[in-house]
Amino acid sequence: VTEAWPGLSGRFRNGAHVLPVRVYYEDTDAGGVVYHARYLAFCERGRSDCLRLLGISQSELGDLAFVVRRLACDFLKPARLDDLLEIETRFGDLAGARLELDQQALLGGMPVFRARVTIALIDRQGRPKRLPQEMTARFQASMESGFVTKL
Amino acid sequence: VTEAWPGLSGRFRNGAHVLPVRVYYEDTDAGGVVYHARYLAFCERGRSDCLRLLGISQSELGDLAFVVRRLACDFLKPARLDDLLEIETRFGDLAGARLELDQQALLGGMPVFRARVTIALIDRQGRPKRLPQEMTARFQASMESGFVTKL
Amino acid sequence: VTEAWPGLSGRFRNGAHVLPVRVYYEDTDAGGVVYHARYLAFCERGRSDCLRLLGISQSELGDLAFVVRRLACDFLKPARLDDLLEIETRFGDLAGARLELDQQALLGGMPVFRARVTIALIDRQGRPKRLPQEMTARFQASMESGFVTKL
Amino acid sequence: VTEAWPGLSGRFRNGAHVLPVRVYYEDTDAGGVVYHARYLAFCERGRSDCLRLLGISQSELGDLAFVVRRLACDFLKPARLDDLLEIETRFGDLAGARLELDQQALLGGMPVFRARVTIALIDRQGRPKRLPQEMTARFQASMESGFVTKL
Repeated sequence: VTEAWPGLSGRFRNGAHVLPVRVYYEDTDAGGVVYHARYLAFCERGRSDCLRLLGISQSELGDLAFVVRRLACDFLKPARLDDLLEIETRFGDLAGARLELDQQALLGGMPVFRARVTIALIDRQGRPKRLPQEMTARFQASMESGFVTKL
Repeated sequence: VTEAWPGLSGRFRNGAHVLPVRVYYEDTDAGGVVYHARYLAFCERGRSDCLRLLGISQSELGDLAFVVRRLACDFLKPARLDDLLEIETRFGDLAGARLELDQQALLGGMPVFRARVTIALIDRQGRPKRLPQEMTARFQASMESGFVTKL
Repeated sequence: VTEAWPGLSGRFRNGAHVLPVRVYYEDTDAGGVVYHARYLAFCERGRSDCLRLLGISQSELGDLAFVVRRLACDFLKPARLDDLLEIETRFGDLAGARLELDQQALLGGMPVFRARVTIALIDRQGRPKRLPQEMTARFQASMESGFVTKL
Repeated sequence: VTEAWPGLSGRFRNGAHVLPVRVYYEDTDAGGVVYHARYLAFCERGRSDCLRLLGISQSELGDLAFVVRRLACDFLKPARLDDLLEIETRFGDLAGARLELDQQALLGGMPVFRARVTIALIDRQGRPKRLPQEMTARFQASMESGFVTKL
C-alpha cells in the first residue's frame, strides 16, 4: 500500500525532513484558526515520518520509546482551514540519550510556528537509554549522504 | 485529592449517570461549534466515570478492556464555546460480553446529541470475554439500590 | 506548494475517493490501538479532500457549511501505531439538503471501520439549504465522467 | 445548571487557580501515558476557567481573543489513565497587551509538567490590543482580595 502513496511520509529537502500537513476542521477552533496544541501533534508527525524514512519504526522499538522532555516554541502567525503547511525537521546530534531538534511549520514558505524540541529515548521504567548502535549508524549514514544536515 | 473535588466524576440522577462537561476551545472548530467527534469523547468520559462511581476502574482491568463495537448517533443542535453540557448515561443489561448504552448530551436540559452505543469487553488478543462476576454483582447491586435503572 | 505533493488529497479509484491516513501517536490510546473517535476525524478528512478534488473548497462556502446530522458505524478491527489506512468515500445523491455517504477505513485492503454518514448543508442560522446549482453540476459532471459512482 | 456542579471551574488556592483534570482514554497514547500535546489543552482549560471565575467570559470578548504567543515547557514525569491532575495557574502582570503565566500539572501534589506561557489579546485582524479597563480592574480587585497572587 505504501508504494501507492509516494510522498506520504514527506521527503528530505536541503538537509531537512519536510512533511506536508493539510489543515482540516479537527485542527481548527472557534477562533477560526489552528488550535495551538495541534502544532505539537504536527511536529510529532514530522519526527515520526523523518525516522520512518531513515528506516526507524517507532512501533518496532520494543521496550524503548522516544518522549518529549522539553519544548520552547513561538506561535508567529495563524493558519486556517484548508491551509497546506509544511513541517520542517532538522536534527542535532543523535549520539547520547537526548536529542535536540529544530522544527517549524511553513505556510507558503513562511514560518508560522517554530519549536526547539528535546527528546529522549527511555525504557518501560522511564530510564533514559542511549540510542542503539544500529540507529546511530543510520543517522550517520544519512548525514554523510547529505540527506540530513546536523544543526 | 479526589475528596477535594466532589462531583468531578458526576453523579447518579433519576437512574442515569450524569457528568458535567465544559466546552473549551479544544472542543470547537472553525464553524464556531463543538467538533462532531468530540461528542464521542465526551460520552467515553461519561462511561468511564459511571464505571468509576460503580467501583470499576478501567486501568485495573488487567488484560481486559472495554471497546466500542457499534455506534448510532444523531447530532441535534450545535453547542458552543463555554457551554456547560451534561452527559447522561443509561445502561442496559451487563451480563454478557456485549453491553448496550443510551447516552445523550444535554444543554440547558435539552438534548443536543444522542447515541446508542454497543461496547464489548475483550482480552489482549481481541477475543470477547464475559464480564467478571464481581463486576456483574456491582452492577446488580447498583440497579437494586436504584442508582442505575436498566434501559 | 500543492503541486509539490501529488496524492496529498487522495484520488478517485473505482468510483470512490480514497485518502491515505497514517496512524500517529496522537491517534492511539493507552489500549495500544486507534482511539475510536479518531475514525470520525479520518472520515471528515476524506470528505473534505473528496470535495477538494471536485473543486469544492469548504473555506470558500461563505455562510454555508456542511455538518454531520447522523452517523451509524461499526468498529470491526483495531488499527495500530504506524499503520497506513485508506479512507474510502462513496457519495449518494447530492441534489437536496441532505447527503448520504458510505465511508470505510481499510487496512491492507480489509475494512476495519465502516460508517453510514448523513450530512447537511446549513447557513449561519443553522437552517438547511439546498446545494448551490454550481456544486450540483460539478457532482453531476464527476459522476458522468465515472470518477464518482452513485451509491 | 452551573450551580449544580460546584468546583467544576476549579477554585483559587494559595494565590493560584487550581483546576482538577481527570485523565481519560482520549488523553493517552500507545505509550500508555498522557500524550504530550494534551498538557497544552489542559493548561488552556485552566486559563479559561481562571478567567471565568474572575468574571471574564471568552465567548463574550466580542472581536477580541486571547492567543498563545510563546511557550516553554518541561515534561517531568508521565501521567496515566485515570490519574487525577491539578492544573495550577499563576498570573503575572495583566496591564499591557501581553501576559505571562506560570502553569503546572500536579499529580499527587508533585509537578509532572511545567510551562511558562505568554498570551496576547488580539483583534480580528490579529493586531495586539491592550486589555479593556474593566478586565484590568477585575484582575486588580482579585489580586487585592488575595485570590490571585502576582508572579
